[in-house]
Amino acid sequence: MLHPVILSGGSGTRLWPLSRQNQPKQFLKLMGDHSLYQETVLRASKLPSAQVPVTVCSEEHRFMVGEQLQAIGIASGGILLEPVARSTAPAIALAALHVLANDPQATLLVMPADHLIADEAAFRAAVRSATKLAVEGWLVTFGITPDYAETGYGYILRGDGLGDGGYRVQRFVEKPDVAAAEHYVAEGTYAWNSGMFLFQARRYLDELAKYAPAILQAAQASYASAKADLDFMRIDREAFAASPSDSIDYAVMEKTQRAAVVPVSCGWSDIGSWSSLWSVAERDDDGNRYEGDVIAVDTRDSLVRASDRRMIATIGVEDLVIVDTADATLVARKDRVQDVKAVVDRLKAAGRTEHLFHRKVYRPWGSYDSIGVGPRFQVKKIVVKPGAALSLQRHAHRAEHWIVVSGVAEVTCDDRVFDLHENESTYIPLGSVHRLRNRGTEPVELIEVQSGSYLGEDDIVRLEDVYGRS
Amino acid sequence: MLHPVILSGGSGTRLWPLSRQNQPKQFLKLMGDHSLYQETVLRASKLPSAQVPVTVCSEEHRFMVGEQLQAIGIASGGILLEPVARSTAPAIALAALHVLANDPQATLLVMPADHLIADEAAFRAAVRSATKLAVEGWLVTFGITPDYAETGYGYILRGDGLGDGGYRVQRFVEKPDVAAAEHYVAEGTYAWNSGMFLFQARRYLDELAKYAPAILQAAQASYASAKADLDFMRIDREAFAASPSDSIDYAVMEKTQRAAVVPVSCGWSDIGSWSSLWSVAERDDDGNRYEGDVIAVDTRDSLVRASDRRMIATIGVEDLVIVDTADATLVARKDRVQDVKAVVDRLKAAGRTEHLFHRKVYRPWGSYDSIGVGPRFQVKKIVVKPGAALSLQRHAHRAEHWIVVSGVAEVTCDDRVFDLHENESTYIPLGSVHRLRNRGTEPVELIEVQSGSYLGEDDIVRLEDVYGRS
Repeated sequence: MLHPVILSGGSGTRLWPLSRQNQPKQFLKLMGDHSLYQETVLRASKLPSAQVPVTVCSEEHRFMVGEQLQAIGIASGGILLEPVARSTAPAIALAALHVLANDPQATLLVMPADHLIADEAAFRAAVRSATKLAVEGWLVTFGITPDYAETGYGYILRGDGLGDGGYRVQRFVEKPDVAAAEHYVAEGTYAWNSGMFLFQARRYLDELAKYAPAILQAAQASYASAKADLDFMRIDREAFAASPSDSIDYAVMEKTQRAAVVPVSCGWSDIGSWSSLWSVAERDDDGNRYEGDVIAVDTRDSLVRASDRRMIATIGVEDLVIVDTADATLVARKDRVQDVKAVVDRLKAAGRTEHLFHRKVYRPWGSYDSIGVGPRFQVKKIVVKPGAALSLQRHAHRAEHWIVVSGVAEVTCDDRVFDLHENESTYIPLGSVHRLRNRGTEPVELIEVQSGSYLGEDDIVRLEDVYGRS
Repeated sequence: MLHPVILSGGSGTRLWPLSRQNQPKQFLKLMGDHSLYQETVLRASKLPSAQVPVTVCSEEHRFMVGEQLQAIGIASGGILLEPVARSTAPAIALAALHVLANDPQATLLVMPADHLIADEAAFRAAVRSATKLAVEGWLVTFGITPDYAETGYGYILRGDGLGDGGYRVQRFVEKPDVAAAEHYVAEGTYAWNSGMFLFQARRYLDELAKYAPAILQAAQASYASAKADLDFMRIDREAFAASPSDSIDYAVMEKTQRAAVVPVSCGWSDIGSWSSLWSVAERDDDGNRYEGDVIAVDTRDSLVRASDRRMIATIGVEDLVIVDTADATLVARKDRVQDVKAVVDRLKAAGRTEHLFHRKVYRPWGSYDSIGVGPRFQVKKIVVKPGAALSLQRHAHRAEHWIVVSGVAEVTCDDRVFDLHENESTYIPLGSVHRLRNRGTEPVELIEVQSGSYLGEDDIVRLEDVYGRS
């Protein structure tokens, strides 16, 4: 059986201001209706004999993973929560252990969550080739046939043919300089290292035992004491933190005698920057890609992305990236977008939050968006998912007014519990113990007006929480 | 006595998205704490023997004029409301009639509301010269010594000297082509036509009687039947509309034998575009002008203006104008900003409103800002000025929740009248007759959550209104 394993480790800010630490690239709808994570899951689900996907992600992103799976109607084969980042070799070991518990013959298809593949047929053909090699005991990496002399990726030099479109790996090559990259592309025997792998789970652990036993031991120990929590597996922090931090390339692929590569040309992109998104996106005759409400006059070769409730007008510009969000707008020359890092660094240095999270914040129970703020008051739009509940809580410095605009909210306020229907409101006095719950089948939308001397998110005492946050 | 007359006729969209039809350039705080209108009033108020200013403006802008005067603590000498636009000659005739009613010897200093003057001392000196000439019966225009060969302005060729820094006007020249403009600048005897004038009110009307009697008659008839309303004079529509539409230049200055010009170099600008604002603004060493929350990396010769609650980041760009507002963002090459007109035309053609008004809307009683909107609900932040009241009104399609966040609101809801204090809320059921009033001395801020099937501004029946809108 083929078990897709999706590594959702990135916390990238390279697509800031759209990507934030708590909402990285893989969860964004960059093109069309699905996020890259969802695209990856859907792509894998179409493969012959594919099982439900296993996702390895950080604690912080767990509810987003759960929701994005639910939104596309794909069952989860497990969401493994890495308590700390230890690179890819330990993460894949966790997934292998998880899958082997139920399928001792499991084959793993390991994929980063944040890559784009335009030509799915080519990808499926490559998976077919790799599967045949995996059966013979090969650890297969997918090598992307390079389109140009990229210096930002590692390369793989192929060796002898193994049949079925596969080759022995002759050598892994670090990120090259331009001259070397040009040589690699001209040579025709080098491929980009895509970070996608296919192998028998058992075989991977065997190789790990041979070349990186400390990683295997830490994975085994931490997985053995993992705790199931809703759809999640909470991996034991102390045991997992004991693992060396190492990539699968260094820990296994560069050392094993059984490394194979299947070259593939499938319109792959890691969308490592706004310019890279522009280059893979469909564009109009003037080379522009627009998302949202854009009015453009004499604009060329630009990516313009408007956010909800606001339009962007451009006049006489070219080679720009313009990205608007609720709290930040980026205007950058397209060939300078990698310097978005400099902006994020300044935000960090100033103790700001625009690199950490969006104005709209996702929570296990739904979301909130701070739509208005002033001295001593804040207005939030709150959405509570069907069946969900906020924690039973209390605030020391603020009172709250709730007005339901759709759905039916169950409100607890001290010793009263009552339903609040559309167009009804209630008042939560300062210090009251309160809870908001949605027992219905439709989302509850409500407007919360907070008033008080201090309105920070940290003025909250959680007395009880179904998501383990109290 | 010197009576400043401020012509606030423009409805320009050349500074879109900051300028809107209901909030044109003269009312914007483009630099510093005051609008151009306020700067114009303040500048005039410092002149020796200056009286309270008379403003001529359109019906639509009347409350903005009143508020902006109040904000700088300057008493109004009258706000004359033009019922229709008829260019400058009739507007100035109205002001002359208004001023002569109390001061038969009045001298008028006529100034457009939307111009910038950097060197006030030079301006004051020119006013001194012009005043002396006016006493001798001259109609004086201020000619700006040109800095460069501008083709967007008319020019004035001076003739014989009259002493006191003044000259006879030899000729008014239409907007020239580049070659002619260059010639004019080189010549040294040409000046830009600034639209500022100084003359005896009586004298102006006499010349009007001679050269444009229909204008004088319409002004007299419409002023005679004007109605005083709060601080405003409502000019009679029918009588005023009968006036020919003509500028003071065509109607009087080009015809009279008594036209004089006082050349002046006073850092004058009409801020006719974003690039013109950039060129007169103080800039940093890289040639940038920033307003608001801007993080700039390698940015040059640009104007970047962030709006409330949102930051703008720029990377590697130059010669751009970036202007953000609550509902629209402009990104334009600095030498293409005149094409903002093309954007406004598209907005008009699409039946949109982003060229007409801002998300935050000023009303005689205060303001409202639509901070959140969704299916069947809208959230507004409402500010009611001390002493002000909304109309007594009723809605057919929406109910409203009000939560006071500061101040004390007097609420009328059907037959109840009660006070709502900070952090208290109330509910206005659909169909109820209601009113909001501020009897206090501090502004009332409240959050209104509307719910209903239709939430348009036109769902309002005004039963009673202190501002004459019922």
